Amino acid sequence: MTKRILVTNDDGVLSPGLLALAQEMRKLGDVTIMAPDRNWSGGGHVKTLDRALRVREFRLEDGSQAFASDGAPSDCVALATLGYFKEKFDIVVSGINFGANLGHDVTYSGTVTAAMEAVIAGIPGVAVSLEIPEGHGNATDFSASTYAARVAVENVIAHGLPEDTLLNVNIPFLKKEEIKGFRVTRQGLRVYHSRLDERVDPRNRPYYWIGGDAPTGVPEAGTDVGALAEGFISISPLQLDLTAYRALSDVSTWEWK
Amino acid sequence: MTKRILVTNDDGVLSPGLLALAQEMRKLGDVTIMAPDRNWSGGGHVKTLDRALRVREFRLEDGSQAFASDGAPSDCVALATLGYFKEKFDIVVSGINFGANLGHDVTYSGTVTAAMEAVIAGIPGVAVSLEIPEGHGNATDFSASTYAARVAVENVIAHGLPEDTLLNVNIPFLKKEEIKGFRVTRQGLRVYHSRLDERVDPRNRPYYWIGGDAPTGVPEAGTDVGALAEGFISISPLQLDLTAYRALSDVSTWEWK
Repeated sequence: MTKRILVTNDDGVLSPGLLALAQEMRKLGDVTIMAPDRNWSGGGHVKTLDRALRVREFRLEDGSQAFASDGAPSDCVALATLGYFKEKFDIVVSGINFGANLGHDVTYSGTVTAAMEAVIAGIPGVAVSLEIPEGHGNATDFSASTYAARVAVENVIAHGLPEDTLLNVNIPFLKKEEIKGFRVTRQGLRVYHSRLDERVDPRNRPYYWIGGDAPTGVPEAGTDVGALAEGFISISPLQLDLTAYRALSDVSTWEWK
Repeated sequence: MTKRILVTNDDGVLSPGLLALAQEMRKLGDVTIMAPDRNWSGGGHVKTLDRALRVREFRLEDGSQAFASDGAPSDCVALATLGYFKEKFDIVVSGINFGANLGHDVTYSGTVTAAMEAVIAGIPGVAVSLEIPEGHGNATDFSASTYAARVAVENVIAHGLPEDTLLNVNIPFLKKEEIKGFRVTRQGLRVYHSRLDERVDPRNRPYYWIGGDAPTGVPEAGTDVGALAEGFISISPLQLDLTAYRALSDVSTWEWK
């Protein structure tokens, strides 16, 4: 049976990464696009309850129909799965994000939290992100990313995903023919270099940017960060159960009264 | 040495839950308050990078000084730990939230993601949330919650927390003397009853609320949901490593090319 694929992202409905992903997904099934009407990077796992959401229709560059909401990526998935569309979706694919989502990025990432929202709705979710080195913000070569997305989604269609699990796919900034292959990885360690940047406005009032250099990571073998550093596409199964199981018995010995 | 405690929340700087928490934490150390200037419930793990943040000073009901930013709870923690204040904090405590944060709530929750942000900054984080049954939105009895917060924070001060770990504390809606005790738990299963509620504005344009009944949960023994259902305070150690370790070997056997 034809698969119904919902495509979303966090860079906004007009991002070329979304278009490239939607075109690739059309090889695998019927594609519906519902994405934010603006960039939501770093927006986290949002459930908008204090205001209503609007939906507008867009045409993408290739003429295809897309829907855009003024909510977060996870709101787009909620809208789409709670009944904005009549169809039920078989899989939700989010991306192609401009910038990798590695290590601790995952709970901030609109790309990943859109896939989380899918999983909470009982639908397999796949997040796809392309590493973008500083100064390459206008990258347009999505050939490695669309390849990675297709292989990942084909696998999810073939095998399913364990309950409560999503796939976090990250692609190194390489031409498709330079990619060394795939690595199934665990979440690695991001190193943030954030710095507070205080400025003063024309009325002499201070304001604060979260600034500093772009995050780096610890390229340990077996991790998402390590795979990308070696030229591999990283596939990390992530779960929504955040229980620190290894800490449970220790914390249980503390005095609780 | 006197502990330096940062208190934040996601209901906003003027929430009585924040005041109750700050007053209780003063028994354990020096308290600094930096919280959002408005309600951020369901706002997720935000890192605001596309705009600057403002900070205003407030006086709480008891006359104590508080700082409020126009960012998310996690932005407040970032501001506080990246240098808005000169001091380094020993612990970040977030709450007391109006409403439990159980099961899948944790990645949406501003209360919990504030504690996540602390952990990413290398500081122990504790999130404290009070179950609020429907129709009790004006609850003012924080005695069980402040008790739970104090015991949890004392324990964290005494024992530390494993790296990459935070404590998610949830309190049932009971008087302090009715509380049966503490349970160290794993993250349970939330059941959401969201429904899309389409309306039409005075200009005949549709808009959409994420509506439906309040979430419930599966009160399984050993879980946060189960503990609250039985009248216990729930203490769940959570980690920021979302790797689905049990899925790794299975996903590795898929065809990756």
